[in-house]
Amino acid sequence: MSQQQRQQFPALANKTYLNYGGQGPLSRPALDAIAQAYEWVQQIGPFSAQANAWAQDCARETREAIAQELGVTPDTIALTEDVTVGCNIALWGMDWQEGDRLLMTDCEHPGVVATVKELQHRFGIEVDICPVQATLNSDNAVEVIAQGLTPKTRLVVLSHILWNTGQVLPLKEIVAACRQVDTQFGEPIRVLADAAQSVGVLPLELAASGVDYYAFTGHKWLCGPAGVGGFYCHPEAMASLRPTFIGWRGITMDGSGNPTGWKPDAQRYEIATSAYPLYVGLREAIALHRGWGTAKERYQQICRNSERLWQGLGEIPQVTCLRTAPPEAGLVSFVLESGEHKGLVQFLQEQGVMVRTLLDPSCVRACVHYFSDEGEIEEVLRQIRRFIEVN
Amino acid sequence: MSQQQRQQFPALANKTYLNYGGQGPLSRPALDAIAQAYEWVQQIGPFSAQANAWAQDCARETREAIAQELGVTPDTIALTEDVTVGCNIALWGMDWQEGDRLLMTDCEHPGVVATVKELQHRFGIEVDICPVQATLNSDNAVEVIAQGLTPKTRLVVLSHILWNTGQVLPLKEIVAACRQVDTQFGEPIRVLADAAQSVGVLPLELAASGVDYYAFTGHKWLCGPAGVGGFYCHPEAMASLRPTFIGWRGITMDGSGNPTGWKPDAQRYEIATSAYPLYVGLREAIALHRGWGTAKERYQQICRNSERLWQGLGEIPQVTCLRTAPPEAGLVSFVLESGEHKGLVQFLQEQGVMVRTLLDPSCVRACVHYFSDEGEIEEVLRQIRRFIEVN
Repeated sequence: MSQQQRQQFPALANKTYLNYGGQGPLSRPALDAIAQAYEWVQQIGPFSAQANAWAQDCARETREAIAQELGVTPDTIALTEDVTVGCNIALWGMDWQEGDRLLMTDCEHPGVVATVKELQHRFGIEVDICPVQATLNSDNAVEVIAQGLTPKTRLVVLSHILWNTGQVLPLKEIVAACRQVDTQFGEPIRVLADAAQSVGVLPLELAASGVDYYAFTGHKWLCGPAGVGGFYCHPEAMASLRPTFIGWRGITMDGSGNPTGWKPDAQRYEIATSAYPLYVGLREAIALHRGWGTAKERYQQICRNSERLWQGLGEIPQVTCLRTAPPEAGLVSFVLESGEHKGLVQFLQEQGVMVRTLLDPSCVRACVHYFSDEGEIEEVLRQIRRFIEVN
Repeated sequence: MSQQQRQQFPALANKTYLNYGGQGPLSRPALDAIAQAYEWVQQIGPFSAQANAWAQDCARETREAIAQELGVTPDTIALTEDVTVGCNIALWGMDWQEGDRLLMTDCEHPGVVATVKELQHRFGIEVDICPVQATLNSDNAVEVIAQGLTPKTRLVVLSHILWNTGQVLPLKEIVAACRQVDTQFGEPIRVLADAAQSVGVLPLELAASGVDYYAFTGHKWLCGPAGVGGFYCHPEAMASLRPTFIGWRGITMDGSGNPTGWKPDAQRYEIATSAYPLYVGLREAIALHRGWGTAKERYQQICRNSERLWQGLGEIPQVTCLRTAPPEAGLVSFVLESGEHKGLVQFLQEQGVMVRTLLDPSCVRACVHYFSDEGEIEEVLRQIRRFIEVN
């Protein structure tokens, strides 16, 4: 079953691929669908009533496919270029006042950290960093985050799955903790989740989680093309979030083409012209996963695979996994006694095994998907042992 | 020569295409290069040292190709998803203070107008609209814009070529007029040009024009894929423009991955993951044009073609072109005596002739490129005459 799925991905034919957290491979059906969509647009357009209607349908069907994966309705989804744009939509859309506080974990992506720094500069907000990295093996992340909340906290920024350690943060419980704070703004503390590592991995019921803003990408665990991501906005949190980067896709117009307001749904956060044929690729990617199994089944298989890898790494004396218990997702981060992480990654690459280093904490990250197989896991373990032997 | 060029474009094989102002067609070499780039990334990655180096090279070469077209150095170019994102970079990056003034023409695109309205809401800036639409046939656009400038004006927003009437605004003269104003900020009035309709049409020497910010797209007159555009920032205007939407592509980091500042050049305005294979398509598109002739030669041919169309339209009694003199670019806008613009566009489409309506001023817009041919121009004129006869 996994073998059949694997054969759909040209990228898996000539290497041992363990970089899903960086970028997922495109399946043959997705590659073909993209190429066909490009040809089709030339056939009917590129700019014509038919081509424009095709692009609209294409965007709508893509929001629908994503919404189903996320457990939300399509009107809560905006399509974006990538996860970072989604984070920026939430970060810049709030009505920041000097002295407002933003709470962020110590494991956020540099791009998000840099945006938060710019908000500090522009609006004089205060930033609190909460130490969740240290909770990887202690199960008290909610408590640590809750301790950082104040009546002046307007937004909490966290990753649903931490990109470095692979820890899954309990989103629903964190949102609940935020709701308990009596803020001085008269509205709840909003929660923005960077979902770069969770969409395509966790079975999601976002509507039930209560999260306000959820930024994701299609090109990692969903195995869609780079350049298509999305942003979920809880309907009740939309009034608190104004569009910032604005274009024709997000606005309403009168009969003379004058802007009159925002689209009524999350499309208000979409900007302008995108590569519509890539939307088709993302839909194909999602369809392929659904054909294999439910989100829950895929997640269970990811966990089985990462446990196998984690276990194997634990049997190598010179290797220590960051987690003391089996991973809760597909990210498996580990350190070498020697600290030779760059050397290892380069060595593995030369052997056709793709993993990556991370800087904080300094470690190596290997990722397994539901369609990773035993042979790949054995191969990376074997090559790590080889590297250690000769170094 | 034009026939040989036309055969490169599959979209031109089955229709009379006059919508370059909406979207340009992709050439066969560009389509093939995109498809091959997708396959190549799967071959070497998608996420690996080699694939990441490929993406970096790809972006660098694309900035270089664009810079050559614009008459600037590559370090002044940021790649964006589209022209609207480029406009937003300039509009949001300024240090707006309550009471600052922004001068905008009355012919800007709704997406840009909506962004300016949002700046009014957020920062309390004042917006002046200058009536350039009425200068189409009177040659006094610079004067009209200069009259709108005040010592409190911080930014002028205009289109280099107006998307509705096709008028070319004299950019260099407008910048010069802005430089003459003694502002109360101690720095010059900045000029943002929306270049959606000028890049790929006008021979550009942007560095010599003095313009501060120039936002453009690759998917219209350059005939690149939708989803790739760019933003030019004059080196002296960079210090006045902070990045707003921020991601890993625009920042510098220390050895632990902490953000330390901005990239030294215009890359600071780039955000995060994009569809890199599309960059290859844009480069192929630019190379195809260069193979045909210089920017000046292409522009002259565009003007010859648009004059021919303008002349032919002028010979139809029930048609009036907006311009009383031959067009200065590839956009030819006209009105029907009957006002039946929607009906005409629909009729033409049914005959395989692609043009579009515009709302303000209410008109029909037909576009010719340097590779448009006599047969196409005759065909659109013939079909317009047919529509008028039967209506």
